[in-house]
Amino acid sequence: MLRLGHRPGRDKRVTTHVALVARAFGAKGIYIEGEDENILKSIEKVKNEWGGNYFTLSFIKNPKKLVEEWKNNGGKVIHLTMYGININSIAGTIPDLDNILVIVGAEKVESWYYHAADYNIAISNQPHSEVAALAIFLDRIYKGEQLNIVFGDSKFLIVPQKAGKKVIKK
Amino acid sequence: MLRLGHRPGRDKRVTTHVALVARAFGAKGIYIEGEDENILKSIEKVKNEWGGNYFTLSFIKNPKKLVEEWKNNGGKVIHLTMYGININSIAGTIPDLDNILVIVGAEKVESWYYHAADYNIAISNQPHSEVAALAIFLDRIYKGEQLNIVFGDSKFLIVPQKAGKKVIKK
Repeated sequence: MLRLGHRPGRDKRVTTHVALVARAFGAKGIYIEGEDENILKSIEKVKNEWGGNYFTLSFIKNPKKLVEEWKNNGGKVIHLTMYGININSIAGTIPDLDNILVIVGAEKVESWYYHAADYNIAISNQPHSEVAALAIFLDRIYKGEQLNIVFGDSKFLIVPQKAGKKVIKK
Repeated sequence: MLRLGHRPGRDKRVTTHVALVARAFGAKGIYIEGEDENILKSIEKVKNEWGGNYFTLSFIKNPKKLVEEWKNNGGKVIHLTMYGININSIAGTIPDLDNILVIVGAEKVESWYYHAADYNIAISNQPHSEVAALAIFLDRIYKGEQLNIVFGDSKFLIVPQKAGKKVIKK
């Protein structure tokens, strides 16, 4: 995952949600353009309680360099954007890709990324949310199986309830 | 849609994302506990440019009353929560329901809602994001078709591109 253009005040919670979805839905880590200790704290707290310690969070200054290196190492770059090809038109061709860097932007993404990406994919051609776009994209990749993820290093385990909450301390 | 516990400073952008996903993914409207003119402005702007004028946004003070009235009128209430039954375990039983009120909370949801809801559904039993939870839930209801939505009253139309942006003014 690469999160572009994070603005600490304005985007703090949305970027945190992007990172939490990435972790919960099976991504290996996230790169965030910018720096924001609050996000790091939130994610470390969730990892500590709910597991997934392998999930990495790195703040970077030069996302274009990351994209170029990713491609040079044989990885594929997928940019999620409402202007791209609707995922419903290309489902089935995506899930086989290994070593994917998924890019989501904040307000406006530079034209460079549209051309550097191997795929520009629209999770609907409507404006909505990069959090939702990432969730649906990972859902298609993992075919819904990501919703069953439980992390082995979790301190807590939820016992799903029809009403109320039940949490076991491991 | 019912969005509980909106806190204007902290939740502004996340609640806006919830509302944008609701509109883009086919919900008829959203009730927001609290009041925040900035969210209303953001949604009105998107409706004005990208259509979906039927989509309603209302600020309410008494969400419990709404839930009770909804049920009294024969509607079903679904609360999305990480403590509920995983949607993977109950998929197939959900899509047939008509007249659904979907509840997503901010930080902490009162116990009352867990017991008032007809279903407490987990979009994974991991902490992540109400934006993602709503997106995946509506995706399951509409079986992915919501990603093809184009609003008849839109001023603009995106022509999906492999790279770059193409927008037509209607």
